Amino acid sequence: MKQVVSIALAASALIVALPASAQFQKPEDAVKYRQSALSLMGAHFSRLGAMANGRVPFDAKVAQDNAALVETLSKLPWPAFVAGSDKVSNTKAKPEIWSDHGKFTQASENMMAEVAKLSTVAKTGNLDQIKVAFGNAAASCKACHDNFRQ
Amino acid sequence: MKQVVSIALAASALIVALPASAQFQKPEDAVKYRQSALSLMGAHFSRLGAMANGRVPFDAKVAQDNAALVETLSKLPWPAFVAGSDKVSNTKAKPEIWSDHGKFTQASENMMAEVAKLSTVAKTGNLDQIKVAFGNAAASCKACHDNFRQ
Repeated sequence: MKQVVSIALAASALIVALPASAQFQKPEDAVKYRQSALSLMGAHFSRLGAMANGRVPFDAKVAQDNAALVETLSKLPWPAFVAGSDKVSNTKAKPEIWSDHGKFTQASENMMAEVAKLSTVAKTGNLDQIKVAFGNAAASCKACHDNFRQ
Repeated sequence: MKQVVSIALAASALIVALPASAQFQKPEDAVKYRQSALSLMGAHFSRLGAMANGRVPFDAKVAQDNAALVETLSKLPWPAFVAGSDKVSNTKAKPEIWSDHGKFTQASENMMAEVAKLSTVAKTGNLDQIKVAFGNAAASCKACHDNFRQ
């Protein structure tokens, strides 16, 4: 948890230290970065889903560690939604990310909050609670995808 | 550090819990996963490099948090080098990864060790020491790329 908080602070610090655009030499780099972060997060979220949905046997330690990693990764994509990166060809990012940025930010914050709750719940090792928290987190992913991903 | 160790253990646990191939439905998924992890690691490693090389002002907290994130990410790619994933079109992975797997594993372990040292050194906030550790970590990346990446 300490590490996760530390990484969250790091993300904040990076935003303060440099304008987001300065972290990426060109819009394509920002797209690749955020796609990598979201893809990796999705992969580890799916491993939790496989346990929450009973497709693989529940392992409390694996669930806990995947949830912690998902929480860490959930902080990363947002500074990479830099101006101009909606014009890159291989992105599903909708223009509404920039035209309705407040709503997008709120959706990303909802997701981070649900994922943080999932990580907390995963530490208990209670599968029933994990299922509920996983469902809430999945809904927060979907809410953002529905509005902001093509 | 505790969290990083926890994630390292998670990676081990995942390897134990499931054969690596079972974590990916098809070889393309494994390629996408490891490319995402390596790309994200590279992006955060570059942010350290920018400070180590004086291209951006040194910020001890930013350096520490990027190094911790790089260390976390450094554990991830290896289970995704699954059998058959050298046949996917958009990968730079050389066949030697599988034909000389012991050497590849050693190279990946060297990198993880150097990156762990970098993360430890970054906690001191001593830029001169960070520069040395960054150089060693960069060399360990290059050593693996030279032999195993096209």
